[in-house]
Amino acid sequence: MEHHIKSWAELAPRLVAVAAGRAHADLVISGGKLVNVQSREVLDGWQVAISGGRFAYVGPDASHCIGPETQIIDAKGRYLIPGLCDGHMHIESGMLTPAEFAAAVIPHGTTTMFTDPHEIANVLGLRGVRMMHDEALMQPVNIYTQMPSCAPSAPGLETTGFEISAEDVAEAMSWPGIIGLGEMMNFPGVINGDPQMLAEMAATMNAGKTVGGHYASPDKGNAFAAYVAGGAADDHEGTAEADAIARVRLGMKSMMRLGSAWYDVESQITAITERGLDPRNFILCTDDCHSGTLVNDGHMNRVVRHAIECGCDPLIALQMATINTATHFGLERELGSIAPGRRADVILTSDIVTLPIEHVIARGKTVAKDGKITVECPHYDWPADARQTVNMGKALGDADFAIPAPAGKNSVKVKVIGVVENQAPTEALTAELPVVDGLVEGVGDTYQIALVERHQGTGKVVNAFVSGFGYNGKMAMASTVAHDSHHMIVVGTDRANMAAAANRLGEVGGGVTIWKDGKELALVELPIAGLMSDQPAAQVAAKADEMVAAMTECGCTLNNAYMQHSLLALVVIPSLRISDLGLVDVEKFELTELFEDDL
Amino acid sequence: MEHHIKSWAELAPRLVAVAAGRAHADLVISGGKLVNVQSREVLDGWQVAISGGRFAYVGPDASHCIGPETQIIDAKGRYLIPGLCDGHMHIESGMLTPAEFAAAVIPHGTTTMFTDPHEIANVLGLRGVRMMHDEALMQPVNIYTQMPSCAPSAPGLETTGFEISAEDVAEAMSWPGIIGLGEMMNFPGVINGDPQMLAEMAATMNAGKTVGGHYASPDKGNAFAAYVAGGAADDHEGTAEADAIARVRLGMKSMMRLGSAWYDVESQITAITERGLDPRNFILCTDDCHSGTLVNDGHMNRVVRHAIECGCDPLIALQMATINTATHFGLERELGSIAPGRRADVILTSDIVTLPIEHVIARGKTVAKDGKITVECPHYDWPADARQTVNMGKALGDADFAIPAPAGKNSVKVKVIGVVENQAPTEALTAELPVVDGLVEGVGDTYQIALVERHQGTGKVVNAFVSGFGYNGKMAMASTVAHDSHHMIVVGTDRANMAAAANRLGEVGGGVTIWKDGKELALVELPIAGLMSDQPAAQVAAKADEMVAAMTECGCTLNNAYMQHSLLALVVIPSLRISDLGLVDVEKFELTELFEDDL
Repeated sequence: MEHHIKSWAELAPRLVAVAAGRAHADLVISGGKLVNVQSREVLDGWQVAISGGRFAYVGPDASHCIGPETQIIDAKGRYLIPGLCDGHMHIESGMLTPAEFAAAVIPHGTTTMFTDPHEIANVLGLRGVRMMHDEALMQPVNIYTQMPSCAPSAPGLETTGFEISAEDVAEAMSWPGIIGLGEMMNFPGVINGDPQMLAEMAATMNAGKTVGGHYASPDKGNAFAAYVAGGAADDHEGTAEADAIARVRLGMKSMMRLGSAWYDVESQITAITERGLDPRNFILCTDDCHSGTLVNDGHMNRVVRHAIECGCDPLIALQMATINTATHFGLERELGSIAPGRRADVILTSDIVTLPIEHVIARGKTVAKDGKITVECPHYDWPADARQTVNMGKALGDADFAIPAPAGKNSVKVKVIGVVENQAPTEALTAELPVVDGLVEGVGDTYQIALVERHQGTGKVVNAFVSGFGYNGKMAMASTVAHDSHHMIVVGTDRANMAAAANRLGEVGGGVTIWKDGKELALVELPIAGLMSDQPAAQVAAKADEMVAAMTECGCTLNNAYMQHSLLALVVIPSLRISDLGLVDVEKFELTELFEDDL
Repeated sequence: MEHHIKSWAELAPRLVAVAAGRAHADLVISGGKLVNVQSREVLDGWQVAISGGRFAYVGPDASHCIGPETQIIDAKGRYLIPGLCDGHMHIESGMLTPAEFAAAVIPHGTTTMFTDPHEIANVLGLRGVRMMHDEALMQPVNIYTQMPSCAPSAPGLETTGFEISAEDVAEAMSWPGIIGLGEMMNFPGVINGDPQMLAEMAATMNAGKTVGGHYASPDKGNAFAAYVAGGAADDHEGTAEADAIARVRLGMKSMMRLGSAWYDVESQITAITERGLDPRNFILCTDDCHSGTLVNDGHMNRVVRHAIECGCDPLIALQMATINTATHFGLERELGSIAPGRRADVILTSDIVTLPIEHVIARGKTVAKDGKITVECPHYDWPADARQTVNMGKALGDADFAIPAPAGKNSVKVKVIGVVENQAPTEALTAELPVVDGLVEGVGDTYQIALVERHQGTGKVVNAFVSGFGYNGKMAMASTVAHDSHHMIVVGTDRANMAAAANRLGEVGGGVTIWKDGKELALVELPIAGLMSDQPAAQVAAKADEMVAAMTECGCTLNNAYMQHSLLALVVIPSLRISDLGLVDVEKFELTELFEDDL
């Protein structure tokens, strides 16, 4: 059941009739100040008339569009701004389904999202992408899907639940809600001419759609130029002014993100505010937002507000979250501005600097008022197999987490994954650890990490060591959110607690659980693909808060360390990671041994 | 034979290899200053490497792209600017074929044109459009075709050679070179919900293509709003600042034109230079250029230069003739900027204010140098029936131009078309004229005009009176360029000369001829559809100069009065016109009588 809106072409006879005064609008908004992102002006007193979910008339006086059945909203001097667009994001990062994510962000004024269901693609492949796509199209706001490009993210270094092929990409390009290709993160592959990566991008370009980029290297020389020549049209991995400038100069859109843990707007927006570059090629996005951020801080309204706080002209900041985004995806005639024919997505706000989101209209209907959603966001009927994705093959015991030492050693030198607070990269450390009863044991702030295979039911567990969380006592934490292939990551000071945590996630179908002294302290159930809850954002956020509290109770001293936990298997970001195939040296992009050679 | 360039997708492996330094470029341009229309900056010392007709590398140092077979151009400190784009134009206005038009404008730096073959559509219908489209695709530069929307321009008031239907439009949308719908000039039809006009626009929008607009009324109220709601995406009919602002505020692109007889840039560009509107929605175009303008003054270089003279920032002026145009037509990833993957269309110029066009490269090949074309522009093999379109049915004689008076009158009061110097609109005048031997005779500056049917061979001649050219003696001028249905317009002081002129055009297959005292003073042969020469622009311009001299010799005192002559049948512009159906009152949009009622 797709949430339907007639095309401009289909609706044109009615829009013309309303604008000409021969037919009546469904809704007229009067008494406001229209923020025109086309001309970059505020037009005091301009009115809009809406029919069939699209703007029919925009101008100084819509009274000729009003009939007895026309609803009238008096804006009472407030601004009318276009509904906000998120240029690139992953719904799964909120641990929410598309429906609940939409329900959480609509009151913040987000009416369009460009979403890359990369996480579910790793678990359920093309079929999982289709489920996300289908739920997206059921929503009362615009959720376009970017076909994930890289599952696995690092072929040969990890095993996903399913793989995405160039044929999958070509097939998806014909689906109604697909807007392009999701971030092409295999940038070394592109630069080296990997045929599959180029074939995925070609299928996208041949369909006239947009290739999303992801170039996560500071090298802005020939490697970057080669990546751009491959066809990626945007990039959200920039973190410095020079990154933004380099992207725009080569004809890419610079997407600047403010996510729950990404702070890349302030450092890049000076390309506009100080360097004076044409702002048309800059776009705001979130990339990843936790449910707590959505509940407490906002969504695209938070990003626009932040851009303004960073010194950006409010009208330019709004353009970067409306028309710039729409134009980039070939949707300038479809949404992103308050102009005839476009989808009638409009926000009423008293102030375009602090940006309170007081009334949200999507496709001509009120969808939120004063922070409360007023519309239903329908749920997809997720099939049983999408809810039974944690397949460990067997119940795990202490022995599955044992790390036998080489024979005859009292201590061994091992590689240790070093967690860094507030950062995605890890450090590649080493430690001399004692051997007790033939098993290597962690000491102090160094304890065990395990990657539990959960897609094929192999029962395989890869064991290694990690340090930096601050854990103490007998505890374990397990998560089936384990970027990017989303097996299960278990970190613990005690093997019995590790086994109990892992088995618990097998029981509930995935999520995050924290155990101490043999008891569960907190649980976030994520039954859909082991990635998403089927509960509303507020409930998920509350459980996530309990999870953070439990981590603290186990001795964790880091800020937002759940992110560090879930990224410990992300084998595309340096330096040392774990995968289902073993320990991974991400500097060399190869598997490596746990025990140091010079032992 | 389409002039082929591989798509970015197809060429990507090679572009990546060149940028990465694994393969050699075809061409490297070094030693220049790159005008980056994406960031709106001049980048000193930036180099480009080109492969397969597209930019492979753009950056500070292309030396890694150079191999023994790579051609190197040293820009010697000159600017590199993207090839110029004409956002809307009619090739037929130059009286040239697409090939000869391209040959004329390439040395001026025009490498992309969006052309509407509206004139030939009136003569040869969809088949004529296809011929223009096919010759366009044979050229070494980018000529996109806009499918003509309105033939006839004024249904019921004139008869064209062929008519364009909504089905024709839908069919054309699948042709490779069709970029959208040509100017929807039946704006009253759109505003009134005319089903055919809306169906044509729907077919275009459903194909994901751009609807060209033409709203030629000063009313910027509800009628304009209704027109915009119909789907037209741009408009080049604005003549005042307020027109440009109104278009952009409603989400249209304001196309500002400088043609041979259009001067609409200076009056509108203040919307940017003084009112500070976002320039992204402004586009430069020519609409109509005579061959003389192309030979003597330039093409898009003339428009950009003029915009700069009007106070526009040179980089913004260049954006309005490059990336803005490309973006509007969904081609931002294809052309309009010097960036990886785009067609390698680039101009070398010593100065971005006076804009001398010193070296033009299109699709990576030098196409003009120092004002001389260096490439072949292939001719389409125009079939015989496209060269035999002047079908009068019979040789005409004096009697065909006789205007019998009502019985028993010595003088009659008649309507007279009043020509106005340098303006397209005419005046609706009246005159008391003498009757001699039962026929009404012109006196002084009032003489005869005839519309000779030439599409169906009916032998029909509609006779009336015109004044204002200044003609005297025994003369006649005939033209098969007779907007918009392109029958034949004959103006003369003497019926024998009128018949001779008309018959002469029948003999040569169309064009313009001027006769005095029974002898031909000048002839411009336009054998293709009676609209276009198959000769180069310089020859056509020379003949057109002779034509103007001949008009002067016949007593004409007006500037550029050929335009007035060819527009006398343009029944969509006020006030009084002639068509094959009779005299037309364009204020009332109806046929009217030659003789005044109050006689």
